[in-house]
Amino acid sequence: VTALKTPAEVVDSCDVTHGMLSDPAASESVVFGDNGVLSAARAGRSYIDHSTIDEEAGQRIFDAVKGKGARFLSAPVSGGWRDAAKGELLFIAGGDRSLFDESSAPGAGMACMGHRHWFVGDSPGEAARAKLMLQIMMGSMVGALAETLALTERAGLDPTQILEMLDASAMSNPLCKAKGKLMVDGNFAPNFQVYLQQKDLRLTLALADKLAMPLPITAAVNAQYVAARQRGLADSDFAAVRGVYDNEGGEKR
Amino acid sequence: VTALKTPAEVVDSCDVTHGMLSDPAASESVVFGDNGVLSAARAGRSYIDHSTIDEEAGQRIFDAVKGKGARFLSAPVSGGWRDAAKGELLFIAGGDRSLFDESSAPGAGMACMGHRHWFVGDSPGEAARAKLMLQIMMGSMVGALAETLALTERAGLDPTQILEMLDASAMSNPLCKAKGKLMVDGNFAPNFQVYLQQKDLRLTLALADKLAMPLPITAAVNAQYVAARQRGLADSDFAAVRGVYDNEGGEKR
Amino acid sequence: VTALKTPAEVVDSCDVTHGMLSDPAASESVVFGDNGVLSAARAGRSYIDHSTIDEEAGQRIFDAVKGKGARFLSAPVSGGWRDAAKGELLFIAGGDRSLFDESSAPGAGMACMGHRHWFVGDSPGEAARAKLMLQIMMGSMVGALAETLALTERAGLDPTQILEMLDASAMSNPLCKAKGKLMVDGNFAPNFQVYLQQKDLRLTLALADKLAMPLPITAAVNAQYVAARQRGLADSDFAAVRGVYDNEGGEKR
Amino acid sequence: VTALKTPAEVVDSCDVTHGMLSDPAASESVVFGDNGVLSAARAGRSYIDHSTIDEEAGQRIFDAVKGKGARFLSAPVSGGWRDAAKGELLFIAGGDRSLFDESSAPGAGMACMGHRHWFVGDSPGEAARAKLMLQIMMGSMVGALAETLALTERAGLDPTQILEMLDASAMSNPLCKAKGKLMVDGNFAPNFQVYLQQKDLRLTLALADKLAMPLPITAAVNAQYVAARQRGLADSDFAAVRGVYDNEGGEKR
Repeated sequence: VTALKTPAEVVDSCDVTHGMLSDPAASESVVFGDNGVLSAARAGRSYIDHSTIDEEAGQRIFDAVKGKGARFLSAPVSGGWRDAAKGELLFIAGGDRSLFDESSAPGAGMACMGHRHWFVGDSPGEAARAKLMLQIMMGSMVGALAETLALTERAGLDPTQILEMLDASAMSNPLCKAKGKLMVDGNFAPNFQVYLQQKDLRLTLALADKLAMPLPITAAVNAQYVAARQRGLADSDFAAVRGVYDNEGGEKR
Repeated sequence: VTALKTPAEVVDSCDVTHGMLSDPAASESVVFGDNGVLSAARAGRSYIDHSTIDEEAGQRIFDAVKGKGARFLSAPVSGGWRDAAKGELLFIAGGDRSLFDESSAPGAGMACMGHRHWFVGDSPGEAARAKLMLQIMMGSMVGALAETLALTERAGLDPTQILEMLDASAMSNPLCKAKGKLMVDGNFAPNFQVYLQQKDLRLTLALADKLAMPLPITAAVNAQYVAARQRGLADSDFAAVRGVYDNEGGEKR
Repeated sequence: VTALKTPAEVVDSCDVTHGMLSDPAASESVVFGDNGVLSAARAGRSYIDHSTIDEEAGQRIFDAVKGKGARFLSAPVSGGWRDAAKGELLFIAGGDRSLFDESSAPGAGMACMGHRHWFVGDSPGEAARAKLMLQIMMGSMVGALAETLALTERAGLDPTQILEMLDASAMSNPLCKAKGKLMVDGNFAPNFQVYLQQKDLRLTLALADKLAMPLPITAAVNAQYVAARQRGLADSDFAAVRGVYDNEGGEKR
Repeated sequence: VTALKTPAEVVDSCDVTHGMLSDPAASESVVFGDNGVLSAARAGRSYIDHSTIDEEAGQRIFDAVKGKGARFLSAPVSGGWRDAAKGELLFIAGGDRSLFDESSAPGAGMACMGHRHWFVGDSPGEAARAKLMLQIMMGSMVGALAETLALTERAGLDPTQILEMLDASAMSNPLCKAKGKLMVDGNFAPNFQVYLQQKDLRLTLALADKLAMPLPITAAVNAQYVAARQRGLADSDFAAVRGVYDNEGGEKR
């Protein structure tokens, strides 16, 4: 293995370059910075960014890379490093269709790292939007679970039993199972933080606003995650939204 | 097999009698009516009602049966007749603990019909409350799914792809998979009707009100099911809540 | 002035009897109790109840009094004893139309006590419903004011200035002026308690549910008053809903 | 009266220049454009912008004008041209305090045009925020009124009577009186459009999000105005939010 020094060197020596950065700013810096992807991009070269980036940043990179004659695909992943090692990541891709087809073909880059690949549209924005759809379901399911478990305790029932019932029902899913346990244990060491979950809800509500689509459930869910931030839980795992339902000194009149 | 003529005859000839009626009124009529359960109830006899009944009706039956020296258990089920045939029903029970223990022991009544049994408390009300906890999760998950798929379409994405992604994620669950397909197909032949789902949300909000527990997410979800009733969808499957998000003639300003 | 001993004596000696009791139970007891209104009701006698009673209690009284050949009007008031002394109460009436017309004519009973009289329908229930309409506006306006003032403070603005602006605008109204001052002062000595305001919101949501009318704004408002009860503010003035927005230890991330 | 040709000429010949433009873009163009305010701004000159501008645009103008040694005040108004003619505008000002004091002193500019002047803070942003506080109250009051009148009709009551009662109560205010009449008449010729009201709600929710302040009532209200846009009512008066509650073909089950 040879470690190259700059993004430009990588792009220069590979047909297809994959990037996975921590946030949109990092994604843009790797492309637009000194010795960045852009400085080496040319016809015959391809760049796939697996970071989760917003619609606007994705479009700027797409336009710039295409402008150099190279191909670009925004292909954010769902899953963690364990999934990557097993080749079980999920890819949600938007941008250049031919690049998607090549890289998800057996033996190619995205096929080695993951077992599901969706091409959702001809622009990075569509990949970003598709990821938001997953995020609001995630926020809503965990918000509803928090509300259910809070009422469960208030009603004198055993939350662990209720979680067992959920897990034995048609609603059974790994997310609620894991987050439900964290809520019962009061263990909110961050896996995915409140502030990140709420950011995705905010972006989704902004998208819906632009499209004149009312999202009253998501709006109510969002208010609970904002309330979690208000209580100082921004950096806790988003299961900590459970805490919003606890209020000391309350009576039951 | 001998079919007996009245509930009283059944109770008279069996140690443990199981009832499964269509609604609370039927449950009460079988107990309190002429030649009902109550007229034969006595020490040494036991009655288990598997109907989904409200807290108050359950308590009335419990008090009356106990008053005759017999034992009572409210043990509503989750699952349908297919599950019953396979012995895979779920039982959520409240009332007489010894009766629960006996009937869920290997070879006994509830053990033959189901593979999971939870004893949630010493009164029928606790079984009723536990079932409501499952119902609000169900209503919220399907409400959030409707909202997500409505935005998905509005945003120009393919709802079938989004459902595939959900199903490949940690959120994967049979309920959303089934209801999501119904929403995409616009097929709302009733399995569990809008008006029944909304009734459970209403009962849960009433319970929470009594306990001074605010449920803002459930309240927003409930408003969407009421809106479905307003549009004439009361008797459709509750996945029809998806229709609330469609409004003809809208622009995107 | 002669004080008579029982409701029956009053009804017996007067053409029109006015009652104003503390709650529906008291209203029913005065009518149905020993030596109650009902025992003296007969053709030629009329009874007007100015208490705020629920739809069902009003209907029971109406049916019973009518059954004796007498006339009945449910005419709850808006306003306090100061208004009564000045003849400035407001009457919202439902029931017997001829009785309403007579008693609101110049010089007659309701005309002496009040200066506005509305006949809203031929049953007491319609008067009860009309009062609920006022109550949800009241709950929503004060809830929105609480939210506005909470954000005002969080945004570093002066709530007293904002209240002055509101009062100088087309939104100016005595209710918000009074409740806004209580919120700024943190003075929640009860005039109309949180639990009473929330009860009216609950009744309204129940009415709307029956009519399949979604009330998403009222539902969100209601959750805030329930949250106030959760915090032990049930017996404070309903302006105390402002307190729901304060959460110690919060950061601004 | 001499009409000068450019903003620069006006600033050059007057101690204090007042601007009132249609939107933030116009405000910025008058300042930063060719022969704009900025090109003539210098020590001894003052500029007051009465437009409703957002926090960021206000700050850019403030910084630029101050940078030239001149004074700047953002002083958006509440009220229309009729109020201006009578000297009854309201001014909500943020920026240079000495300029505010001078211009609101008897006989000076803002004193001639208006009778109430509030200085809310040392930056234009604070004036913008204060105006948003008024806007969310306005949106919430009219949203709650729409909900109340929709339920009123559904419950078989007369909305005109309910409006009379509101107007006779402590809630009486010119805004609800006017908008209530529009709702009953179904007359939504625009005075202040749905899309403008919803824009202010959106900006307020964004501000609250930044400050980690949950606004569940405003979020529910906002969803109703978005729903109005979805139905093609963006350009109607914001009282048209009433239409969101009408759904043809609904039953009452």
